[in-house]
Amino acid sequence: MLARFFPILEWGRTYNSSVLSNDLMAAVIVTIMLIPQSLAYALLAGLPPVVGLYASILPLVAYAIFGTSRTLAVGPVAVISLMTASAAGAVAAQGTAEYLEAAITLAALSGIMLAILGFLRAGFLANLLSHPVISGFITASGILIATSQVKHILGVKAGGDNWPEMLGSLASAVGDTNAWTLAIGIPATIFLFWVRKGAKPALQAIGLPPRAAEMTAKAGPVVAVALTILAVIALDLGTKGVNLVGEVPQGLPPFAFPSTDLTLIEKLWVPALLISIIGFVESVSVAQTLAAKRRQRIAPDQELIGLGASNIASAFSGGYPVTGGFARSVVNFDAGAETPAAGAYTAVGIALASLFLTPLLFNLPIATLAATIIVAVLSLVDLKTPGQLWRYSKADFAAHMATIGITLLAGVELGVIAGVGVGLLLYLWRASRPHAAIVGRVPETEHFRNVERHQVFTVPHVLSIRIDESLTYLNARWLEEYVLEEVADRPEVRHVILMCSAVNEIDASGLESLEAINHRLIDGNIGLHLSEVKGPVMDRLQRTQFVEELNGKVFLSQARAFAELMRDDGKNEPWPDDMARGMI
Amino acid sequence: MLARFFPILEWGRTYNSSVLSNDLMAAVIVTIMLIPQSLAYALLAGLPPVVGLYASILPLVAYAIFGTSRTLAVGPVAVISLMTASAAGAVAAQGTAEYLEAAITLAALSGIMLAILGFLRAGFLANLLSHPVISGFITASGILIATSQVKHILGVKAGGDNWPEMLGSLASAVGDTNAWTLAIGIPATIFLFWVRKGAKPALQAIGLPPRAAEMTAKAGPVVAVALTILAVIALDLGTKGVNLVGEVPQGLPPFAFPSTDLTLIEKLWVPALLISIIGFVESVSVAQTLAAKRRQRIAPDQELIGLGASNIASAFSGGYPVTGGFARSVVNFDAGAETPAAGAYTAVGIALASLFLTPLLFNLPIATLAATIIVAVLSLVDLKTPGQLWRYSKADFAAHMATIGITLLAGVELGVIAGVGVGLLLYLWRASRPHAAIVGRVPETEHFRNVERHQVFTVPHVLSIRIDESLTYLNARWLEEYVLEEVADRPEVRHVILMCSAVNEIDASGLESLEAINHRLIDGNIGLHLSEVKGPVMDRLQRTQFVEELNGKVFLSQARAFAELMRDDGKNEPWPDDMARGMI
Repeated sequence: MLARFFPILEWGRTYNSSVLSNDLMAAVIVTIMLIPQSLAYALLAGLPPVVGLYASILPLVAYAIFGTSRTLAVGPVAVISLMTASAAGAVAAQGTAEYLEAAITLAALSGIMLAILGFLRAGFLANLLSHPVISGFITASGILIATSQVKHILGVKAGGDNWPEMLGSLASAVGDTNAWTLAIGIPATIFLFWVRKGAKPALQAIGLPPRAAEMTAKAGPVVAVALTILAVIALDLGTKGVNLVGEVPQGLPPFAFPSTDLTLIEKLWVPALLISIIGFVESVSVAQTLAAKRRQRIAPDQELIGLGASNIASAFSGGYPVTGGFARSVVNFDAGAETPAAGAYTAVGIALASLFLTPLLFNLPIATLAATIIVAVLSLVDLKTPGQLWRYSKADFAAHMATIGITLLAGVELGVIAGVGVGLLLYLWRASRPHAAIVGRVPETEHFRNVERHQVFTVPHVLSIRIDESLTYLNARWLEEYVLEEVADRPEVRHVILMCSAVNEIDASGLESLEAINHRLIDGNIGLHLSEVKGPVMDRLQRTQFVEELNGKVFLSQARAFAELMRDDGKNEPWPDDMARGMI
Repeated sequence: MLARFFPILEWGRTYNSSVLSNDLMAAVIVTIMLIPQSLAYALLAGLPPVVGLYASILPLVAYAIFGTSRTLAVGPVAVISLMTASAAGAVAAQGTAEYLEAAITLAALSGIMLAILGFLRAGFLANLLSHPVISGFITASGILIATSQVKHILGVKAGGDNWPEMLGSLASAVGDTNAWTLAIGIPATIFLFWVRKGAKPALQAIGLPPRAAEMTAKAGPVVAVALTILAVIALDLGTKGVNLVGEVPQGLPPFAFPSTDLTLIEKLWVPALLISIIGFVESVSVAQTLAAKRRQRIAPDQELIGLGASNIASAFSGGYPVTGGFARSVVNFDAGAETPAAGAYTAVGIALASLFLTPLLFNLPIATLAATIIVAVLSLVDLKTPGQLWRYSKADFAAHMATIGITLLAGVELGVIAGVGVGLLLYLWRASRPHAAIVGRVPETEHFRNVERHQVFTVPHVLSIRIDESLTYLNARWLEEYVLEEVADRPEVRHVILMCSAVNEIDASGLESLEAINHRLIDGNIGLHLSEVKGPVMDRLQRTQFVEELNGKVFLSQARAFAELMRDDGKNEPWPDDMARGMI
């Protein structure tokens, strides 16, 4: 029980020196990767770069204690940083103390929400984000993020709350481009693109073994950071209009306190909820993928608690919302991390960096960080999915495109809400029109099949309807309309059999509709019968008046129901035996 | 096509004098019933009584043109009046011109929304209100409405936005009770209760035929109105503190114009949407019940247009939101109305009343109208449903009680939203944990059944899973977890068969989960096979890469899949024939 809430108690017991050395190795590599990323994502979130470092220390320790994935690496990520910028920007201006307070409060709210959802075992809420909505959201976020960083490459001031505004603002600012900034930004971007694909083969070509080459390539951003810092110093670019990171406070994260101002919380809770859910979905997908590769398991509801603890830790140490990142988790996994302790060691690495390395970052050009972000997020943009969805499912295509369109035009929050809304509407629409079929008997068998697809035997006074869904409130109205219309179209019907082999549940609304159908059929002197009702469904029906009031019987099998009722044609003449057997 | 949008074109063609006389007769009875009701519901909505008359003229004509029910009687109803009071009261004080404008604007917004939903054929949205939510809402509304009218019976001033506040306000005001008002209100209430049950037998006892007795009993409220007016005049109660209706403007409805103030519309659109949906659900249930009794049909999407036209007509003639009412529709039906023309004749009756009868209403005590409302709404309070729901379905019980509780404590709008929210959450929760079963072969048959419920034949290296739901984004994550956990628990498994006989649809998220399962099983060197995939589902799968990439086969029948795969146990030894036939 205790181990459920503290997974560390489980893996901690078997911790030994071989695991330790693997975890340490992974931690070193992830630390090197995480330093420029943390600075860059803080920039994207509109926060001082050091906040990115703060968000990469205590949250990792908290996840190591509460998380269930062995290899997930938490910290600032691109999409969540963009959402933080959008939410905090709505309540305060970038650069103000209120803006930072809003970001910290977002982390606290998000942490509390995630933890509550975890205790309520409400991870299923993440299901509301379908794959097409998530991929649309990530594509659109990638476009927004990349566009938002172009100004740093050009060295101009630009703004905009949505994509057209951003493009317009960039277009009117492009004349102010700073040549020195561009001379840093363009080569850095090209170098980082090359690092992604070309560095590993190149390093192998100069003799490194494949694994070492791959790991070394991950240090590409650090190389870009170092080279551009040197370029700034050598050419004294700080005096030539190149924006630099400037002074970064040296030292460990401060003890921060989220706001308890209810007005602020009222403004931030919706974005905090969206950040929580998007963060959880992103994190749990990564964790599941990596766990499956090693045949491990994660517990989604406990993951909520782990991420909740991380965000609360982030809030109290001056950070902003965090979640499990895809790229860094894969690096952690590939580098051989075996337990969440690797995350804690990474935290130590980042803490050392914020203690000792920050003075070195004074001359780091913002353009280098922007290049890091652009290269990272453009890989998120997925242009193949729309075509695939169009071919496979128009409804999913609609949800995908609505998410992309509204995210680009109206921002990340409305984009997510619209995606969830469109997905849910289309789902409800389909759920309200479930599949059902008029069935008849396949000759010389006891099987019943759709009359429209098979040559089957039916009699005009018995209407057999197979219902292919559970009866819930979403389709209860449909059921009434469908059955009564089919009956209204067939004046000769004397008996209706509802074949319930696919009905796994009948909720109270479904039951009321069955009762209504029964009463209306009684008015028309028509029998209503059920066949093949599943055991648990029948158990519940028997607790109600319905079975007593039913103007007909409940048959164990459709074949028996049909055989009995087909003889009651109102003519009181015996049926020929071969006809009864369906041999016509 | 034209007749679809103008049902009047259909029934109008066969209109003759016998139908005319039936419709006229019904119209007279409904008019007599509707006059006191219209005044009372306007009072409940916090509006001048004459507004209730205005809302009972043009809306009825509009419905006669656009509605599909032959016998539905539209006009002001209790629940919608309460919702109007709540929404208009949030933007203006009762008795002001702004309050009236808000009510008119609510009617216009609601009319436009209903019409748009009708053109979009979006009547399925009403499904979001499950039976337990509707009945909970109506019970709680009935309690709120009855409580809100007690002050008029006592002749005191009291307020309150929720039930505890109302009770508290009444308790502290009860000392100011006006004895004369009470002397009108209590007998009127008792009389009206008696009329509901006792008047018909009493009238039959004095010799009236049953039908005439029933119709005469419907005039009970008019009798109460007349007697209390006479009492006021005889005893000069107007000077003794009894609140009277006072001057009611004489004449036809004015031409009114809803507000186009966007700030107001922004505040009113949510309540207008809720009013629209609640009104539609109430109306369509009544219309369906009555139509089924005469084997007629209604078209729910056209009903949206009919109710939309009624509300727009109401807005432009100084009325407030209307819908089809239960009691008056039943009276209309019982009185023999055959076509919607009866509604138009009722409109003429009400118009004549507002031209000539309003001076008579000057001395009508408010207490009489309050008594009418209390007696009408207490029949809506349903105390049996909670127990029935508790026994039948805990989830439905939860949605019912949440709706009642939140409506009583936080008002009608939050009550409806909470009911829909709880219902949807519970649905999503269940949808995210669908039914699936490990199946084995029933010996000597080709049937496969749940291993936990039946004595069936299985082999350890073949895992057959029957999925009992469509694969959608709501359960895609579950599918991955379920299949991979079942496989992880059985190290000897070499083949997984997903039996898809109950899978009516696989959406893009379901497909991605199947692809993920396939990839993970490939990693574990396990085959993934599908059996009994339905035709339309297979057609769509074939448009994707999935079938090509599948690490296994698609089998037409589960029996064939099992027969083939059970032989591949990795030992390369022939199976005994009788074992293969499942005779062990």
